[in-house]
Amino acid sequence: MHAEILSVGTELLLGEIVDTNAQYISARLKEIGVSVYRRQTVGDNRSRLTGAFREALGRASLVIATGGLGPTDDDLTAACLAEALGLPLEFHEGAWEDMLEWFALRGREPSPGDRKQAMIIKGGIPFRNKVGTAPGQAVFKDGKLACILPGPPREMIPMFEEHVVPLIKSTFMDLVPLYIKNLKLTGLPEVRVGEIIKDLMESASPTVAPYVSRGEIRIRIAAGSKEPGEAKRMVDGMAREIRSRLKEYIYGEDDDTLESVVGEIMTRRGLSIAVAESVTGGLVAHKLTNVPGSSRYFKMGMVAYSPAIKATCLGVPDEALRKDEAVNAETAVSMALGVKSLAGTKIGLATTGFAGPTGGTDKEPVGTVYVAVADESGTEVERFVYSGSRIDVKEYGAVRALYVLWRRLSRSGKNPELK
Amino acid sequence: MHAEILSVGTELLLGEIVDTNAQYISARLKEIGVSVYRRQTVGDNRSRLTGAFREALGRASLVIATGGLGPTDDDLTAACLAEALGLPLEFHEGAWEDMLEWFALRGREPSPGDRKQAMIIKGGIPFRNKVGTAPGQAVFKDGKLACILPGPPREMIPMFEEHVVPLIKSTFMDLVPLYIKNLKLTGLPEVRVGEIIKDLMESASPTVAPYVSRGEIRIRIAAGSKEPGEAKRMVDGMAREIRSRLKEYIYGEDDDTLESVVGEIMTRRGLSIAVAESVTGGLVAHKLTNVPGSSRYFKMGMVAYSPAIKATCLGVPDEALRKDEAVNAETAVSMALGVKSLAGTKIGLATTGFAGPTGGTDKEPVGTVYVAVADESGTEVERFVYSGSRIDVKEYGAVRALYVLWRRLSRSGKNPELK
Repeated sequence: MHAEILSVGTELLLGEIVDTNAQYISARLKEIGVSVYRRQTVGDNRSRLTGAFREALGRASLVIATGGLGPTDDDLTAACLAEALGLPLEFHEGAWEDMLEWFALRGREPSPGDRKQAMIIKGGIPFRNKVGTAPGQAVFKDGKLACILPGPPREMIPMFEEHVVPLIKSTFMDLVPLYIKNLKLTGLPEVRVGEIIKDLMESASPTVAPYVSRGEIRIRIAAGSKEPGEAKRMVDGMAREIRSRLKEYIYGEDDDTLESVVGEIMTRRGLSIAVAESVTGGLVAHKLTNVPGSSRYFKMGMVAYSPAIKATCLGVPDEALRKDEAVNAETAVSMALGVKSLAGTKIGLATTGFAGPTGGTDKEPVGTVYVAVADESGTEVERFVYSGSRIDVKEYGAVRALYVLWRRLSRSGKNPELK
Repeated sequence: MHAEILSVGTELLLGEIVDTNAQYISARLKEIGVSVYRRQTVGDNRSRLTGAFREALGRASLVIATGGLGPTDDDLTAACLAEALGLPLEFHEGAWEDMLEWFALRGREPSPGDRKQAMIIKGGIPFRNKVGTAPGQAVFKDGKLACILPGPPREMIPMFEEHVVPLIKSTFMDLVPLYIKNLKLTGLPEVRVGEIIKDLMESASPTVAPYVSRGEIRIRIAAGSKEPGEAKRMVDGMAREIRSRLKEYIYGEDDDTLESVVGEIMTRRGLSIAVAESVTGGLVAHKLTNVPGSSRYFKMGMVAYSPAIKATCLGVPDEALRKDEAVNAETAVSMALGVKSLAGTKIGLATTGFAGPTGGTDKEPVGTVYVAVADESGTEVERFVYSGSRIDVKEYGAVRALYVLWRRLSRSGKNPELK
């Protein structure tokens, strides 16, 4: 049993939007145990779309299409699937009533074109759309299941989860779902992570795969099994093994972010923080304040971009400011101590460096970032040199600053005196 | 004459990565005058990939595939295209020498598998890869052109631009390229923009289409013509008409960003700025400092998240702080004046509000953002209420702050006294 996905819309073929629906559906089908063999994208063209449905239904036992369900003449998906299946479209009272209710709730009247959206393929099941007007639908024929869904992701995703996933599970009974856990880590280059877990990445079940984004790595562990609980046991065992090898770098799982994890620790311990940034230009503060409830522990951010501000507001000594244009360890430590004292917080975190593209000194090239953290038990400072664009350097530097903070919070957490 | 695009890779079908190559190639083909009728994604599977090539070559006169050119056994793209065309693969000395040079430059030795990457379809043209090892290639047969390119975008894009685009233009001589201009605007809801340019959006040539992202709108104007200069004349004429209707909101074109445009104005006039942020949490400073050279005018950012910091560092009066938890016009204006004075800049910009998801007051709900700007000629403040997630409110608020700044800089620019 395998599936094909069809993305419908001329705007996709024109390159005007990226097709995130196909990726979403691919990933979710994999999780519930369905293999996708092919995806196609076709425009709003009757013969090509009908042909694509025929080809897909000829090969796969599950076909899912998104897009082209709207009220206008170039929304052809339902008509083309009907033609490919050799079935008529019929006006569906229930689907129409759902749409009337949707309009009534919003104090609006349907237009004549909206009736078209209540045309359902004979024998098909309409899926109510809670977010927009166009219902989706599913049709069974000759042991095959075809589903068509609206194109906007915020309409497609809830409909897929609520209607399509249960329908697939009840139609194809032998699917083996995947159990998945992601470990999130940072502070180590990808190539080192690859070396440390090389043998584990060769495992066939559970599979272990690292994914990299700027400064962070996610290790995805996945296993499928028909035995209840067996996949979870396998994945949890592998996660324990990976944790034992990389424990100083793994800050969380799945939806955790560095900023949410440090926020949770600071909240639990009643700590507070202030941040002084030069090279990261506000990005550390932005990340920390993305976390709901961060005002409980985040008190102040200072983007000290000029030497005068570093001196007058944060008390960085002249000597440090003159050395390599204030890109040095003493400046970073002074900034961390200065902002901690100015804001009256338990922790001060600071960054200084050269984001580029121009600037830098012989000793401290573009890409250099110093991160310093100060708390009641002292200070520490680290230097890194990154390559990439100005925005890459800011991003890597901000992630590193949060990692240095997390590492210090984790270590101090192990010492009961510092709790 | 039309094209099909083939994306190759099991990781795409597993939903592990988003296929940005297909979008990039679609958009660029449109610009040079080629219509894309279909895109397909297939995994690293010999029979399905060969079948997909056969189908595409049966329908289209140009087929472009990306991915599956590496040294490992599951990199099958060249072999499958060769099979679909009925042509053999041959070892290509020139392509191999290019690869050896690439390795030598990096002080590395090719591995035995790398030789496979120098296998070029008989009669084909290898494309040198400047970024990685795998060359691309193009083959002509029966009036059709097939190109295969590496999967990583940083390898694919330069090869596409340098080799594939010129080859398409010289092969298919009758293409009518598009001339495109984007107008960038903000400060007006999408629905209002749609009303103001409704009649223009119905134009068949040039076409006029708005694209929306958080807080900003891009209006894309595009026309094609065989007459040299005619498309540019049509697009420029349409741009003038749109500018005449929306001039207070259009801040730039194409690659301009709000932060780059305000930076350019401040640099030209020798102005300097400091920012005090509450609700936007550092995002305004982050955006301003994303611009290369921003240290010339950006002096200081202050994220004043606690009332104590707003009072002691920025001099916001107690009365303003107590009213609606410091979310009010007086607080915003005090913050703008306070940070301007603290940093000794010509301009102060400030935000305060409730990002949510919890909090807010009866009068000032979650989503409320006040933006204030202060300069030598006075102050102004505006209030907005946005809906969306915490991160949406921060993003909308930061874009609005930069818009209010841009608008004030533009207006003051028209008054020679303020220059």
